[in-house]
Amino acid sequence: MKRSALIDQIKQKSSFLCVGLDIDLEKIPTHLLKVEDPLFSFSKAIVDATAPFAVAFKPNIAFFEAYGSKGWISLEKLISYINTIYPEIFTIADAKRGDIGNTAARYAKAFFETLGFDAVTVAPYMGRDAVEPFLEFTEKQTVLLGLTSNPSAADFQYHPNTEIPLYKKVLKASQQWKNSSQLMYVVGATKSDALKEIRRLLPDSFLLVPGLGAQGGSLQEVAEAGLNEDCGLLVNSSRSILYASQDEHFAQAAAEQAQSYQKEMQHYLSKINLL
Amino acid sequence: MKRSALIDQIKQKSSFLCVGLDIDLEKIPTHLLKVEDPLFSFSKAIVDATAPFAVAFKPNIAFFEAYGSKGWISLEKLISYINTIYPEIFTIADAKRGDIGNTAARYAKAFFETLGFDAVTVAPYMGRDAVEPFLEFTEKQTVLLGLTSNPSAADFQYHPNTEIPLYKKVLKASQQWKNSSQLMYVVGATKSDALKEIRRLLPDSFLLVPGLGAQGGSLQEVAEAGLNEDCGLLVNSSRSILYASQDEHFAQAAAEQAQSYQKEMQHYLSKINLL
Repeated sequence: MKRSALIDQIKQKSSFLCVGLDIDLEKIPTHLLKVEDPLFSFSKAIVDATAPFAVAFKPNIAFFEAYGSKGWISLEKLISYINTIYPEIFTIADAKRGDIGNTAARYAKAFFETLGFDAVTVAPYMGRDAVEPFLEFTEKQTVLLGLTSNPSAADFQYHPNTEIPLYKKVLKASQQWKNSSQLMYVVGATKSDALKEIRRLLPDSFLLVPGLGAQGGSLQEVAEAGLNEDCGLLVNSSRSILYASQDEHFAQAAAEQAQSYQKEMQHYLSKINLL
Repeated sequence: MKRSALIDQIKQKSSFLCVGLDIDLEKIPTHLLKVEDPLFSFSKAIVDATAPFAVAFKPNIAFFEAYGSKGWISLEKLISYINTIYPEIFTIADAKRGDIGNTAARYAKAFFETLGFDAVTVAPYMGRDAVEPFLEFTEKQTVLLGLTSNPSAADFQYHPNTEIPLYKKVLKASQQWKNSSQLMYVVGATKSDALKEIRRLLPDSFLLVPGLGAQGGSLQEVAEAGLNEDCGLLVNSSRSILYASQDEHFAQAAAEQAQSYQKEMQHYLSKINLL
């Protein structure tokens, strides 16, 4: 999917909500554990319930991979279902892969071709040649880790200090890579001052902001610091939607939570005259 | 597998050779493309041919994942075969995963429990909490990216300069993490001065050195710079063994190449009186 199609959908749905599919079988309603493929069945129910309010779905690959090839079969069913029923929705494989050129090309093939995702998250540690094979897929988007939202993000992303931190080097250097217009960036929501600065560094880029809800990010702060004239934001929520209720009404509860985020997003999009 | 069992095997085989299984279907003998599972069949043949000379096998996960769940089934067959027939051989999933705590725990489960690898390669960008879930598996080893051998390694691993480069921060900081005695490190073979310095920083750690053969590393330089009193090295070769011949004698050619490395390694191990 091209960036322009994503922007069209954002305007149409008045939403920049990404629903993260980090499916923890210990947290899903117990009646779903009895079906043949609980990972797929729960994910499908969440997708169907939240599709009217979300512009992106982001399966977390680890939660499928933990079950080996069986989990990968569930993942394939899920992405195939989304691509068939909701082809307009942007799909992100949250995989955080990163390896040398010929290996990166294989990961790109896995997520873009074999599975058919629109985007994949990628780690920058190994540098340019670990990312450019993803950027060769010119109809796809590559989401590079910039500043992450976890407590240990500061360990290395701020090396050697907050004046010239690694994460800014990653943001700046990556803008020089081949096909860099297809880059998006992961930016932790818990740091809204940093978000403002990143927006100054990257005025045009889409930023994927994780951590709404369970990780404590404020949507208002993120919107005020991060929106640009194309919207330029995808704000992710996983747990607060997935486990809004753990009984048989989970899908309805997920839809209500997603709609509540969408309504708030509509307000911020209106304020900057994007709708 | 514990570190002591790996050291025993190194002494027994007079070898610190790791065979990288980066199986490229475009490079394997064409007659193998007709069998039911070429990825598994070729890997199995290489494993059987090189097992007498190697102490570790390192499947590159991307080369399996490129084929989706089908590739993951081949990977499961392969690791199960190695663990059954060659339980003494150390197995490394070259996966370079790295994500926040609850996600890292899923990746650790995937490679250590579901698949049954002895070790997995992990990326440091997200910091301590992205690695410690792997270290909780006290019978397993976690191989952290330090300095990699690809051309773009310098992009970020030397940030902000060669005096206080990121990769040294990674090496030092990680030594303070919980269960850090289970850490090993990826160190690019193409930089033997750096290898000497890393050995000074980490006198006791095992270093996994990729890039022997096709990537141009010299075994002699690596051995002189990197061996310690436990050996402390695993030196990887992939392409020069896997594709030593591309006709029906590929397995014999792979064995001969592996044996040639082993003989040279025996010489270096003897020189430091480890045998």
